[in-house]
Amino acid sequence: MSVAAIDHPFFKHLVGDEEAAALFSMNAEIQALLQFELALARAEARHGLIPAEAVPAIEAGLKGFTPDAQAIAEGIGNDGVIAPALLKQLRSRIAEPYRQHLHFGATSQDVIDTGLALRLVKAVALIDHRLGKVVDDLAFLEARDGDIEVMAHTRMQAAIPVKAARKIRSWRDPLIRDRERLQASRPDVEILHFGGAAGTLEKLGDKEAAVAADMAAELGLAHVDHPRHTERDGMAAFASALSLITGSLGKFGQDVALMAQNEVGEIELATGGGSSAMPHKKNPVPAEVLVTLARFNATLLSGMHQSLVHENERSGAAWTLEWMILPQMVVATAASLRLAATLAENIAFKQRNSGS
Amino acid sequence: MSVAAIDHPFFKHLVGDEEAAALFSMNAEIQALLQFELALARAEARHGLIPAEAVPAIEAGLKGFTPDAQAIAEGIGNDGVIAPALLKQLRSRIAEPYRQHLHFGATSQDVIDTGLALRLVKAVALIDHRLGKVVDDLAFLEARDGDIEVMAHTRMQAAIPVKAARKIRSWRDPLIRDRERLQASRPDVEILHFGGAAGTLEKLGDKEAAVAADMAAELGLAHVDHPRHTERDGMAAFASALSLITGSLGKFGQDVALMAQNEVGEIELATGGGSSAMPHKKNPVPAEVLVTLARFNATLLSGMHQSLVHENERSGAAWTLEWMILPQMVVATAASLRLAATLAENIAFKQRNSGS
Amino acid sequence: MSVAAIDHPFFKHLVGDEEAAALFSMNAEIQALLQFELALARAEARHGLIPAEAVPAIEAGLKGFTPDAQAIAEGIGNDGVIAPALLKQLRSRIAEPYRQHLHFGATSQDVIDTGLALRLVKAVALIDHRLGKVVDDLAFLEARDGDIEVMAHTRMQAAIPVKAARKIRSWRDPLIRDRERLQASRPDVEILHFGGAAGTLEKLGDKEAAVAADMAAELGLAHVDHPRHTERDGMAAFASALSLITGSLGKFGQDVALMAQNEVGEIELATGGGSSAMPHKKNPVPAEVLVTLARFNATLLSGMHQSLVHENERSGAAWTLEWMILPQMVVATAASLRLAATLAENIAFKQRNSGS
Amino acid sequence: MSVAAIDHPFFKHLVGDEEAAALFSMNAEIQALLQFELALARAEARHGLIPAEAVPAIEAGLKGFTPDAQAIAEGIGNDGVIAPALLKQLRSRIAEPYRQHLHFGATSQDVIDTGLALRLVKAVALIDHRLGKVVDDLAFLEARDGDIEVMAHTRMQAAIPVKAARKIRSWRDPLIRDRERLQASRPDVEILHFGGAAGTLEKLGDKEAAVAADMAAELGLAHVDHPRHTERDGMAAFASALSLITGSLGKFGQDVALMAQNEVGEIELATGGGSSAMPHKKNPVPAEVLVTLARFNATLLSGMHQSLVHENERSGAAWTLEWMILPQMVVATAASLRLAATLAENIAFKQRNSGS
Repeated sequence: MSVAAIDHPFFKHLVGDEEAAALFSMNAEIQALLQFELALARAEARHGLIPAEAVPAIEAGLKGFTPDAQAIAEGIGNDGVIAPALLKQLRSRIAEPYRQHLHFGATSQDVIDTGLALRLVKAVALIDHRLGKVVDDLAFLEARDGDIEVMAHTRMQAAIPVKAARKIRSWRDPLIRDRERLQASRPDVEILHFGGAAGTLEKLGDKEAAVAADMAAELGLAHVDHPRHTERDGMAAFASALSLITGSLGKFGQDVALMAQNEVGEIELATGGGSSAMPHKKNPVPAEVLVTLARFNATLLSGMHQSLVHENERSGAAWTLEWMILPQMVVATAASLRLAATLAENIAFKQRNSGS
Repeated sequence: MSVAAIDHPFFKHLVGDEEAAALFSMNAEIQALLQFELALARAEARHGLIPAEAVPAIEAGLKGFTPDAQAIAEGIGNDGVIAPALLKQLRSRIAEPYRQHLHFGATSQDVIDTGLALRLVKAVALIDHRLGKVVDDLAFLEARDGDIEVMAHTRMQAAIPVKAARKIRSWRDPLIRDRERLQASRPDVEILHFGGAAGTLEKLGDKEAAVAADMAAELGLAHVDHPRHTERDGMAAFASALSLITGSLGKFGQDVALMAQNEVGEIELATGGGSSAMPHKKNPVPAEVLVTLARFNATLLSGMHQSLVHENERSGAAWTLEWMILPQMVVATAASLRLAATLAENIAFKQRNSGS
Repeated sequence: MSVAAIDHPFFKHLVGDEEAAALFSMNAEIQALLQFELALARAEARHGLIPAEAVPAIEAGLKGFTPDAQAIAEGIGNDGVIAPALLKQLRSRIAEPYRQHLHFGATSQDVIDTGLALRLVKAVALIDHRLGKVVDDLAFLEARDGDIEVMAHTRMQAAIPVKAARKIRSWRDPLIRDRERLQASRPDVEILHFGGAAGTLEKLGDKEAAVAADMAAELGLAHVDHPRHTERDGMAAFASALSLITGSLGKFGQDVALMAQNEVGEIELATGGGSSAMPHKKNPVPAEVLVTLARFNATLLSGMHQSLVHENERSGAAWTLEWMILPQMVVATAASLRLAATLAENIAFKQRNSGS
Repeated sequence: MSVAAIDHPFFKHLVGDEEAAALFSMNAEIQALLQFELALARAEARHGLIPAEAVPAIEAGLKGFTPDAQAIAEGIGNDGVIAPALLKQLRSRIAEPYRQHLHFGATSQDVIDTGLALRLVKAVALIDHRLGKVVDDLAFLEARDGDIEVMAHTRMQAAIPVKAARKIRSWRDPLIRDRERLQASRPDVEILHFGGAAGTLEKLGDKEAAVAADMAAELGLAHVDHPRHTERDGMAAFASALSLITGSLGKFGQDVALMAQNEVGEIELATGGGSSAMPHKKNPVPAEVLVTLARFNATLLSGMHQSLVHENERSGAAWTLEWMILPQMVVATAASLRLAATLAENIAFKQRNSGS
């Protein structure tokens, strides 16, 4: 389905992003969930919580697994989470008497939150890489066009002439800071979630910390001293970091659209979008869409912060809201960076007419 | 792709809705766009703007059309809108010398906004129908359980006993008003958008109104006296009507979740979601998700109202933001109503223990 | 205090509005609350629920009342609502044995919600009147400047020339529809709230409807068949109507700011804001602030819709959120209309240079 | 005026906060602006940009200044900013020939943004201090009540018993992280803004950096290498940090309200709010208001991120939006922390009845 433009096959080069979206595909999600279950089994076997023989049995069962998507959808419709239906399908593939050892001591939120964390690691890397590219592209633009004189505008009125470098720096510097903020938010999201039914891992006895440490190491995630099932500050902080990026790029897009106005003409677009009514027009499509994506993430961010009010030991209401929002914010951020790189590579500052 | 949970095949029975989502499928969109182009050609031929022979040629070209989705995606990536790429594909299927007569005098926003309107007609009907059903379900619940005494709670504390009817009425009555509001918003969205390049239909001469009236009649939409390309109040008003529905249902869900608490036990769930860690639990999944969807639409609504600041004769930035948001709000509303019907049919009030 | 710019004495001519703000002053609030209590006493005496002699005693006690604001603040800090502290102060001014008859059978939410309704009646009248004025001002502008040719811009690029009338209509027509929507939302907010502790008026026996009808008549509000303590759809719908107005005006402001750019020069501002660094500049301050207020209300609207999730028979959390938001939305709307009238009166379209 | 509840004299102990609000009083704002102008004059004299004699003249003029608030309000209504009217009033108090040396080379945004920064330094200190207190209060609560067994609830249903310590940690740990985030955001806001008309300090020649460094040192702010007039990422990042705090406290409040339900009774409130209809009730007012303030800031945060789209060298639209929002977020955060401390000191966990 393609209700959200961000998912629509038509929009993948506009507001969507294939590379980022792939992190949230059905397959990527399933693989991440299986990765958790396997790491769990290995660590539990190592610490004697399940028999060593269970590990190859579980590994064999998980290998090559393709979900019955319809049954999973029905399960989620009933349970609100994927885990019960998924585990049922997985267990049917595991030789007895080892079925019971799959997912031992864990709860739905452990596998789902960790499964998300595994993909956010990749999302952060992707976004960081693209941020680096846009920063570099803008540095190149400054090197090439920075000495060109343009008119500064305050409150939508011409002020005094400045060098293009001044404008470009005001686009680039926030991105450099945003990149640092993105890095700073990694410990917020790149963590193992492992707490069992109520965050106490009560079935693991005194092996709790050892198992968690092993799992975290295998999965490349941080081991935090207690699970953050209900502590969603990390998720909201990460969402804020994403919205800062799209917001900073929105300013870049807005400026380009203003400078590329025919009447201003201080920026020239190498290419532009066509119009069905006026084929000669050269529309600053990527510049406008940067504004769209900035406003989109600024809108969604509010919902992520509403989700901080996460009642008790697990809020179906607040947690589901995160699912509906965060992946879109990640992809919107990746799309924005992709468009910004295109834009940075396709604009040229033009010397202001002395007469105008 | 399935970045948005609302699109994800796993979540179609939870936060998604297959029937509503179908209105936003690639195929439904294409069909609506073709409907516009055909109605346009017919009306223009009737009024002598294009030759009569162009109509069967266009009709033949449009018949059985399947888009080259990849080429359209590339076109949208470049142009920001579907029209140029789509028209190119369509024109290649129309016999010469009639190709030029397709889309004559129209602009991208005409066909896209009208294509959306055609589907919103169906969305309104679907939502209205489901609203009627939930209202009826709650009336039945009131008839059956209304005399049962429950405890009123103000500020999260027990107040005085009231009849269940009092609670049920507070869920049902807003929906009755919301349904009236939905009907009141139909003239906001069920309209023909037809303005040409800059809203003046300058290529149609004095036939402008006659062509538009014919098109509106054929498409079952209202003919408004000038195009609303930049007047987005109708879209934002419609979005508000949707958010009122999900918000009213969110209150229903929140109340059910509170009353179904084990310690309160004033509502019994016939069925409930399972837990991977505690299979005995009966979780009030639809009740929680009603809260989720209420908060989701309340979040998105803000973006639709931001889009009211639609600069000049067409804002790529603001218009694209609508595309990213409105379809999700429609589907979230349909999902919320589906879950609410399920919930209303699966709850029973329980007589309060005199002792508790 | 003046934390909110909308309250700040410095900003009353920019984002604030003295006339609208007066509706939310301490005094206006107290007067509205007293009006409720007096209407209640009169109606209850008429129907024999309190002695007839209580009415003059209560009336005498209420007359000339000035609250001990500090004690009320402390009371609200403790109780979350004004009623207990206010009633205590009022009762101390009522001769015995009539003190007990004040507020008989009512609850805090009755007096507070009704007190707000009484002021929203005035707010609607003020906003409606200003909407009428802006619509008229724009009609005058169209009559004067409508034939001037300006350039239409789509996606921030020059498209084709259109008459100024086309632009002006796109500012005015949404306001006409917004005004109808405002009128349509009057039954949502201009109602008596009267339900007692849990919405059942349990202390009034069979006189409930008669007392409420009398009160509604005296207060000039509608009598609805049961209280809407927890049904906040009317409040959220009204907030949506406000945000549509500011959003429509935001589009007007954005267009003016774009057209008044020095490089475009299609609109001339009779006056403009000065700059501390460049005194010669003529900044389109009201135009910009229309955009600000549009985005402000679009932001706040989300919170009003979050408040629809109003748990049980009274949610302190959701209700208090309305208090924090709705008055600001009313004043922002009034401010936006005031600025829009100023702007409409101070702009002139300029003939486009044939050469540009 | 008191349109915003956060400013209303009645609500200062509920959603307002006198100490934080004082930072945004008329007087505090004026003092901060004067501080900037004086530091500017001193630094410019030191570097020979204005005569040394101008400094005592300016100092004398600024000393004891009380603004003509009405004239300032009118100036802001015209100019959109305080600077022109304020400078006019100040200059009239400075002996000639030194008037011209006030504000030399600076622009409105320099003094206004820096004036805000000076007060945000204090706001951060206040919030940080209160965060420390709440963290300590919760540590004390854990030490006292941590071993009491309570029922964990997932998805609003009883799960398994856990120690109270587990719950308390889930309230406290996010606050510890939020405090680190607050500290991390200090370099975002505690900076000197100094750029002149278009961010280039063109009137200061080669003394630009030296003057700025001196001013920053005197004002206790960081000297950044170029002004951030249009780079609002720091403001939005700071707003995010605030919303994380209120959101984390909202979870605390929501949990307390749920645990203090009569039917659950796992938390006892030492004091509670009264009801005008049911004086015996003990309402969890601060707990509820923590939820209110969480949702309030989550709502407003969206507007701060919308403001990132700050067009050109100064956007009146986006900048004014910050003014309308950020002070309220600061005060809401301070209020939330004050209420949270009260709440933490006034709750006691109760041993769960084995029977229930």
